[in-house]
Amino acid sequence: MDHFDAAKSSRRYFDWAATAIPEEKPLAGFFGNPSSLYEEGRKAREALENARSRCAAVLGVPGETVYFTSCGTESNALVLHSLILKARKTGVLYSAVEHSSVRENCQVLERLGFPVIPGKVEKDGRISPETLSRALEKHPDTRFAAIMGVNNETGALMDMKALSEVIRSKNVPVFFHSDLVQAAGKLRLDIRGWDLDSASFSAHKLGGPRGIGLLYLKKPIEVLYTGGGQERGIRPGTENTLGAMALAECLEKHAAAGALEAACKEAAARWAYLIRALKKNPRCRLVPEDREEEDKRFSPWILQARFRDVPGEVMVRALDSEGIAISTGSACSSSSPGRPVLSAMGLDEHASLEGVRISQGWSTSYEDLDALLEGIQKALAFL
Amino acid sequence: MDHFDAAKSSRRYFDWAATAIPEEKPLAGFFGNPSSLYEEGRKAREALENARSRCAAVLGVPGETVYFTSCGTESNALVLHSLILKARKTGVLYSAVEHSSVRENCQVLERLGFPVIPGKVEKDGRISPETLSRALEKHPDTRFAAIMGVNNETGALMDMKALSEVIRSKNVPVFFHSDLVQAAGKLRLDIRGWDLDSASFSAHKLGGPRGIGLLYLKKPIEVLYTGGGQERGIRPGTENTLGAMALAECLEKHAAAGALEAACKEAAARWAYLIRALKKNPRCRLVPEDREEEDKRFSPWILQARFRDVPGEVMVRALDSEGIAISTGSACSSSSPGRPVLSAMGLDEHASLEGVRISQGWSTSYEDLDALLEGIQKALAFL
Repeated sequence: MDHFDAAKSSRRYFDWAATAIPEEKPLAGFFGNPSSLYEEGRKAREALENARSRCAAVLGVPGETVYFTSCGTESNALVLHSLILKARKTGVLYSAVEHSSVRENCQVLERLGFPVIPGKVEKDGRISPETLSRALEKHPDTRFAAIMGVNNETGALMDMKALSEVIRSKNVPVFFHSDLVQAAGKLRLDIRGWDLDSASFSAHKLGGPRGIGLLYLKKPIEVLYTGGGQERGIRPGTENTLGAMALAECLEKHAAAGALEAACKEAAARWAYLIRALKKNPRCRLVPEDREEEDKRFSPWILQARFRDVPGEVMVRALDSEGIAISTGSACSSSSPGRPVLSAMGLDEHASLEGVRISQGWSTSYEDLDALLEGIQKALAFL
Repeated sequence: MDHFDAAKSSRRYFDWAATAIPEEKPLAGFFGNPSSLYEEGRKAREALENARSRCAAVLGVPGETVYFTSCGTESNALVLHSLILKARKTGVLYSAVEHSSVRENCQVLERLGFPVIPGKVEKDGRISPETLSRALEKHPDTRFAAIMGVNNETGALMDMKALSEVIRSKNVPVFFHSDLVQAAGKLRLDIRGWDLDSASFSAHKLGGPRGIGLLYLKKPIEVLYTGGGQERGIRPGTENTLGAMALAECLEKHAAAGALEAACKEAAARWAYLIRALKKNPRCRLVPEDREEEDKRFSPWILQARFRDVPGEVMVRALDSEGIAISTGSACSSSSPGRPVLSAMGLDEHASLEGVRISQGWSTSYEDLDALLEGIQKALAFL
């Protein structure tokens, strides 16, 4: 597809109120407002729908179930807050290790009068099908469940197939939402097999830009935020065409079957190498402690660990001064106190504040891992 | 500020779960998650706060009143839906010519039990201070008013100073919100003089990218969508650093005092030229009909007109085939029936469906205007 060059175009553009002609080249392609009827709008619409089809193909879902949003957090909030429009305030269940954008929006719903149930997780940070089944039986009014695919702090993999079967085995219709932000490009997704009603994705976790996310919706829902009819009424606001195109590219590059499997295999080998080394370190404890070198319960892209008597934040700063970036928990929680995910796994406050998250990507090398291990040794010598 | 070059950096990055290292150069600068504690995060935070200060300086407001959002529509929705958290459902007034993202979200509030009052406008599409005053007296429970600065379909300028004085003259605290999406870069803003409580902006109307908007908030409010604490809790989700930087650049380029006045003067001269020519066309009627060549009631960037017995959509398609882009009404309403803004101004259905919007930008030339006028003549010969 050609890029639009305003200077070379013989077109006369008189719809600046819909969207301005951008001055920077990388922004100039498909700048038209996809809702506009004329050529620039149609080209933008075509590019947007092309991006949608490409995303849908990678996710293995029909094109009309893919909606572009501004980010993963918005995708989660949009689905949760759509409940406000329901006539009846039915129960909402979420796993106690959900990302803050699910957990905190559930708390807002609770404040608005919804019965909200945090679903217990095991010591390994996973929600067991049996626990989920009991929770649904104890709260038969539950009509919404949010369970993430991969935990963003520990890499815990939820057994989506088994959890879905539990939800579908009950005699009531439960809307099943999954935050798959940390799963896309890191795990083979099976949105249809898991029978999800909705799922959230974010481009910037896949190497794409900020300002673009995706929401899968098996069927359209009524939404709270409205105002323009874009994305078939699900997400108002002028469509981010270039963002959608970038997201499609990222998904194809990292989440499509062949590339994904190769990357996961390499990631698993690197992670086994890292975990083997950390397990030899007497001051290091993995979270959970019984995490194995290659462990089917966990994503090989994320690792939670702690170092005896070293607060996580101190370790992060010590490594930073050595040129190494790791984090304490989720960046999205760095402004709030405590570590709700680790607490839900049974860690006491002292232990949970020692937790650090190490996460890798496609370009992470063994050299990087060696530098990290060396950095940790150096830091521990002083801490 | 330097751009980050992952290949050249000696840093070891282990926080891919917070945000991935982008592969494309234009995205690589300040890719860190601004909520992260290490160097990449701090650099991104610094760039974000620098962008915030620059936006605040152009808008003439304190930096801490500027919040980045994903778009103008979200800024409007965010403020309106924050009312859902209030203990009492007090009255909400909006001008009948508001953008769909205000109008439709007010309708959602109405559905949730809020008394919602569409404020009448005059024949010229402007809300008069007297009418506003009467509306507030008739509905003394009103605690929220939304009045846009510049109408997106007609260019009608609201007398923000006078309207603000009316609102502030009442003995009750009314939260005063203004959608300034079409005003930024097109009109001298006086956010503090108008004593606004909040105001919305969008980057792509200023030549910037999609996926980034701005919300001015005199004081923090409680918001409905939550989940990560970003933007001091007002707008959750990983911050769009590059978008914020682009928005700051657009505002400085187009909305700062000197550039703005020069551009407005040139725009006014071009618009006078266009209006003079259109007034000579016997089949053309401006909306409103008494709009003058240079008319203080209207922005010189937007013009609404209609052509006798030519549905707006037909004119848009005819001009498009001649290489000219104009629109029917707002792109954001192109999926919904009718023309609520024109109806609010008293046009009957037949007349309002004839309406077309012509809007110009900084690079619009007299050659463009001549091509448009010629295109209209050619189209009318066949219609």
